[in-house]
Amino acid sequence: MNQANGRWNQQAQGRAQRLGRAAAVLGTRLHGKRVLAEDATKLLEAVLEPGDRVCLEGNNQKQADFLARALAQLNPAQVHGLHMVQSVLALPEHLDVFESGIASKLDFSFSGPQSARLAKLVSGGQIQIGAIHTYLELFSRYFVDLTPRVSLVCAQAADAHGNLFTGPNTEDTPAIVEATAFKSGIVIAQVNELVETVDRVDIPGDWVDFVILAPKPNVIEPLFTRDPAQISEIQVLMAMMAIKGIYAEYGVQRLNHGIGFDTAAIELLLPTYAESLGLKGKICNHWALNPHPALIPAIEAGWVESVHSFGSELGMENYIRARPDVFFTGADGSLRSNRALCQAAGHYACDMFIGSTLQIDLNGHSSTATLGRIAGFGGAPNMGADARGRRHATPAWLKAGAQAHQGRTGVSAMPRGQKLVVQIVETFREHMQPAFVEKLDAWQLAEQAHMEIPPVMIYGDDVTHILTEEGIANLLLCRTDEEREQAIRGVAGYTPVGLARDRRMVENLRDRGIIQRAEDIGIDKRDATRSLLAARTMRDLVRASGGLYDPPKRFRNW
Amino acid sequence: MNQANGRWNQQAQGRAQRLGRAAAVLGTRLHGKRVLAEDATKLLEAVLEPGDRVCLEGNNQKQADFLARALAQLNPAQVHGLHMVQSVLALPEHLDVFESGIASKLDFSFSGPQSARLAKLVSGGQIQIGAIHTYLELFSRYFVDLTPRVSLVCAQAADAHGNLFTGPNTEDTPAIVEATAFKSGIVIAQVNELVETVDRVDIPGDWVDFVILAPKPNVIEPLFTRDPAQISEIQVLMAMMAIKGIYAEYGVQRLNHGIGFDTAAIELLLPTYAESLGLKGKICNHWALNPHPALIPAIEAGWVESVHSFGSELGMENYIRARPDVFFTGADGSLRSNRALCQAAGHYACDMFIGSTLQIDLNGHSSTATLGRIAGFGGAPNMGADARGRRHATPAWLKAGAQAHQGRTGVSAMPRGQKLVVQIVETFREHMQPAFVEKLDAWQLAEQAHMEIPPVMIYGDDVTHILTEEGIANLLLCRTDEEREQAIRGVAGYTPVGLARDRRMVENLRDRGIIQRAEDIGIDKRDATRSLLAARTMRDLVRASGGLYDPPKRFRNW
Repeated sequence: MNQANGRWNQQAQGRAQRLGRAAAVLGTRLHGKRVLAEDATKLLEAVLEPGDRVCLEGNNQKQADFLARALAQLNPAQVHGLHMVQSVLALPEHLDVFESGIASKLDFSFSGPQSARLAKLVSGGQIQIGAIHTYLELFSRYFVDLTPRVSLVCAQAADAHGNLFTGPNTEDTPAIVEATAFKSGIVIAQVNELVETVDRVDIPGDWVDFVILAPKPNVIEPLFTRDPAQISEIQVLMAMMAIKGIYAEYGVQRLNHGIGFDTAAIELLLPTYAESLGLKGKICNHWALNPHPALIPAIEAGWVESVHSFGSELGMENYIRARPDVFFTGADGSLRSNRALCQAAGHYACDMFIGSTLQIDLNGHSSTATLGRIAGFGGAPNMGADARGRRHATPAWLKAGAQAHQGRTGVSAMPRGQKLVVQIVETFREHMQPAFVEKLDAWQLAEQAHMEIPPVMIYGDDVTHILTEEGIANLLLCRTDEEREQAIRGVAGYTPVGLARDRRMVENLRDRGIIQRAEDIGIDKRDATRSLLAARTMRDLVRASGGLYDPPKRFRNW
Repeated sequence: MNQANGRWNQQAQGRAQRLGRAAAVLGTRLHGKRVLAEDATKLLEAVLEPGDRVCLEGNNQKQADFLARALAQLNPAQVHGLHMVQSVLALPEHLDVFESGIASKLDFSFSGPQSARLAKLVSGGQIQIGAIHTYLELFSRYFVDLTPRVSLVCAQAADAHGNLFTGPNTEDTPAIVEATAFKSGIVIAQVNELVETVDRVDIPGDWVDFVILAPKPNVIEPLFTRDPAQISEIQVLMAMMAIKGIYAEYGVQRLNHGIGFDTAAIELLLPTYAESLGLKGKICNHWALNPHPALIPAIEAGWVESVHSFGSELGMENYIRARPDVFFTGADGSLRSNRALCQAAGHYACDMFIGSTLQIDLNGHSSTATLGRIAGFGGAPNMGADARGRRHATPAWLKAGAQAHQGRTGVSAMPRGQKLVVQIVETFREHMQPAFVEKLDAWQLAEQAHMEIPPVMIYGDDVTHILTEEGIANLLLCRTDEEREQAIRGVAGYTPVGLARDRRMVENLRDRGIIQRAEDIGIDKRDATRSLLAARTMRDLVRASGGLYDPPKRFRNW
């Protein structure tokens, strides 16, 4: 309990002591809120105490990488046992701090590139995982039981008052800083520039305690760029089925797309195939989405009314600046992203989430958790869950709900809408691994890592459609577990799961429209060619943008 | 489409035109961002255009009442057909604008005091309701398809740059202003003071276009104050059952309480009855909750580690300032509330929501919608829904999930947790209206108001427990619709629904622990006396606070 000895301001007093230690250690080297880069480690040693809950900013794009390195350089004899509460484990330093003992406990959301090393450290007992969250869930806990004591964040520029300009990658910063600053915590920001006046205020200066000009601009990853040249004709076919069999069928106007070539293909088919179906203005008007370069042709063709973003995407800066009617931008012209609010938008204001996965079982449960890797799920659990608190109706939501509730009795008879949650996968993924399995690896991983329950990304009863190159399974229409199983087997192709189908039952499901093949919805597979893509190369994307899109070097392949 | 004629900055150009008109009309009467109160109507006529989407701030506490009046005074010949997107209809002016034709369409969340008048205007065709939302859902749509063109907000103070200090009632302001300011909208703030320097920056000045010093401080309602003198012994009994039968049973550490005497009784029993059960430190540590005065004794007794709040509560200012370890406060010492983030916290970081309702049907669906009133549900649908995107485990969540999934097959066999959603009601409410009904009024209301589906507040399959003076029905353990129905009838007392129970089946449910009476959990009803309340009067609350709590006049009854 905080109020031992009748004291109710221990947090504020602790803060004052930490600030006092920092002032003492830095002396005249501290200019207002400005700390020299070479003093970063000193500053951290002054303000951190063993066991502190620390948020180190970093998401799938921008990283407070300088502060991550400074943290990793601390003396574990002095600072140890930190409890890290952070969105993403992306950099080696994010795990180095556990190896050295500086940190010992971890609550997080995603660890893509570090997932194998993370699994090793967990099994070696060097990391105690609290839990793996979806982003908005982790931010929510910042205000309840995981409030950071010290936050190390990242911005483009700061002025002398500590006002921060994040540029287009605002991302997680507002949620982190608000939780920390208003609970007597300490906020330290690394910035790329010190300026007289920031272009706009993304974080008010009085929420920020220290600002450090980092020696190099922060790391930032172009995670949402997909080269159209790598889109296969199978993916074109699946995109056609998605558009005609799901988007058009339900009239999906507000949506989120996951990362990947499957959904990039859909984006690139809007101004061509979808246009030919007369769908312009009827689908895909409003997006909760990072500024995907693959969306440029659709935007240029007038398909897109608005895009709100979790983060930004490298190279899209000038394009966004020139298309402010579509994107959320500041008076300075650059994007204002906000992961917490965009995740809320993805949950409550979108009619559909479509994304991919690594494994789907016979009940439709899906997971990207595989043996030897603790990867986390980022935003998928939040956006790929039916928003049961939603109360506004749209045609897409009502139709999905009507299909789910038709003929039901008892508690399930109450009419309500439902979110469309689509899993789009090829039946075999890389190295001929089947995407359909009898049992998810998640079960074994849960045992290995001593998790209370298997780490499922999207639960089967939230999935409404599974789309493969073999067809669409509409799980909303299934009325028994057996029907659901056969609907899944019926689109699982030549995987063992697919081969074990009950052919008669699958044909029956097809007759009832629960399974739909391409030909059932009037798609001729021979039409599924790359020529349908509105852009077939990176260069096409640049051209479509009128030269405004400036892809990162690694994508400049012409 | 926005980009007609190849123009992609129509919103920014529209904004510039509107600002230009304001500058022209106000001339030298405009000082920077400051507009005189007597020019408010002129300003609104200059910046508003027919059909604009407008957010008028107001929640169940603070109201931008001066701006509401100014809006209602516009000339409908000039400004008409506005689409209001606002949390709450609380003031007469919120409906006046529809009567006069200034506004015609409405998307909102709650209309408590205006619900009867709203229903009349809807049936008279003067208001077209888009939808009724839960708060976070409406905020989410601000970033997708209901972005405000002009927002009229409310703050305590502003400086010359337009930096806003909201004081403890930050509430909805950050979400509204962010959506508007970053989509080329216009933000107008009424404030109670103009100051040299704001005590803290809640909203950066460069997100705000105009500031008006209102002639009177904004209206603010003490909605969460419950006089302990009005708590009945029935409510004490129900609170005892809640604590022993649910809070202790599941080990509920993180929670939200609805408004009402039922939950106030629980708060007041923590330092007495719950303490006697040895539950201190084991339940009710972390709260997503407005600063309820009834929580003071529990806080003082060391029960509460943290409280994050949607808004504040009048009279609690000095108490909060003196207890910063518990509340989220700014450097100025006053509360920082944030409805959007606290709703997210309520959804994702709480293990339990407990609240009341007006009607519950035989499937457990509940609603406060009654004939002739269109009231909306505020935050209840968000907090009273299972958070299916949640992935972190706590004992309470795991136990509820285990009860729900035990013995299930197929898609329901996957182990997962579940949120506890408790409906606490006396079997008869005011005027002897039964709380249990065969069919919700919501069905008839939906027909009257041409809603697509009945306005249910919390769906039956999200409700885990129903608690009345007759006992607790644990719906998690029911395995058929019939069991669920009899479990509900079995706690519905002498209402027609309760009298129609199947006695044998109810006794069977009781044997299986699905229905629990007070005596089944070791509670002697004779112990349920008001003497158990840690405060029995408003004066007791003041005393418990060490004189820091300063109740509003209407509650000063000693």
